[in-house]
Amino acid sequence: MIHSDPHKPLSVPDAARSRRATRHFDTSRPLSDSLLKQILHVATLAPSGYNLQPWRFLVVRTDANRKKLKASAYNQPKVGEAPVMVIVLGYHYPERSHLDMIVATMRELGAVTPELAAETHSRARSTMEHVNNRPLWTTRSTMLAAATLMLAAESLGVASAPMEGFDEAKVKDAFGVPDDHTVCCLIALGYATEAKPFPGRLGLDEVCFEEHFGQPWTLGDVEEPRPLSP
Amino acid sequence: MIHSDPHKPLSVPDAARSRRATRHFDTSRPLSDSLLKQILHVATLAPSGYNLQPWRFLVVRTDANRKKLKASAYNQPKVGEAPVMVIVLGYHYPERSHLDMIVATMRELGAVTPELAAETHSRARSTMEHVNNRPLWTTRSTMLAAATLMLAAESLGVASAPMEGFDEAKVKDAFGVPDDHTVCCLIALGYATEAKPFPGRLGLDEVCFEEHFGQPWTLGDVEEPRPLSP
Repeated sequence: MIHSDPHKPLSVPDAARSRRATRHFDTSRPLSDSLLKQILHVATLAPSGYNLQPWRFLVVRTDANRKKLKASAYNQPKVGEAPVMVIVLGYHYPERSHLDMIVATMRELGAVTPELAAETHSRARSTMEHVNNRPLWTTRSTMLAAATLMLAAESLGVASAPMEGFDEAKVKDAFGVPDDHTVCCLIALGYATEAKPFPGRLGLDEVCFEEHFGQPWTLGDVEEPRPLSP
Repeated sequence: MIHSDPHKPLSVPDAARSRRATRHFDTSRPLSDSLLKQILHVATLAPSGYNLQPWRFLVVRTDANRKKLKASAYNQPKVGEAPVMVIVLGYHYPERSHLDMIVATMRELGAVTPELAAETHSRARSTMEHVNNRPLWTTRSTMLAAATLMLAAESLGVASAPMEGFDEAKVKDAFGVPDDHTVCCLIALGYATEAKPFPGRLGLDEVCFEEHFGQPWTLGDVEEPRPLSP
């Protein structure tokens, strides 16, 4: 976290550098409605196939519900501490319920011509018919939105923690999430109680290949990513 | 795309607003090595469970290889047009090959004490033993990195297009990708030939729930996200 002025949001590289998976949140600092809305708005701008936007954000803020969520997440303290927990859901069948609305908006905004609207609609339906692994499909776009959400939060001075340690069946049961949704992750939002050191990253020479799998990245002068602040 | 000055990268909200899934790339404009490296560096700053960083980026730039990739991606023109194609891979077993290196770096940077290093190592191993669906597990973190990559590109004036239309078996075969990796998506990078209108998004009242699944978001005054530029 470099600064916390929501009027001058951080750039993408700066937000990526200063973001940490926050361990403990300040229980005395709530997150304002206005910031929460801004963060969620930006998250919805993530891309998705056919603009189907399968992400759903279940926002949990009451003490009782955060306690319930904590019990479904191996009692991790941050779930109880963070003023806002977002249960990030991936919906399996957005083309069945939301495609008309999505294509109508695209027409309205001039993103498709009236002639192309019908074609877009039918191509989306037929492509989606061939998607067999719906949890995997929805997880792809939903995690794009989750990353956008956390970077937006960081850029606006709000700390986050992505969590994959939870019991999906328990979360679904506790919050009424139906079977046609996957719980992709939890995200805690709020303000960190302490600065956390940068844990480092593998170098580009470890995670990048050139032209063929296993062929090392040969661009010279590869620097390690470093944190902006100590 | 609002501007293209890599010295003043866009903020996260601005980059999210101006990003479009680019349809056609300018074949006469290469992407500089320096920009490509910056974009990939920022992508590696995405979070992952136990900092395992399962993403791998296979960078494809030669004409011959982009042609090969195009043939594995339903002949979509942008694969041939974009100066850089990134095959975004999710590795299934980073804890088997990279955990020592990752924990050593965390120790070096003071992110874990020497005492906690051993515990972190063994907790990561034992947690990962219980992950049955490796393609789903790796897709989660890898798509966080993919989103970070595209937002970083946009913030630095580079257009992108995420693609899920490809034949995974063909891509793997053509580029030697082993079975313990999932092809999560392709990302085209370069410069757009045309401005593309904003296709709209579902409102927060459609994609957010409050406290319980299906319970509508009641925060008043919900604005639709709008593009920054026409």
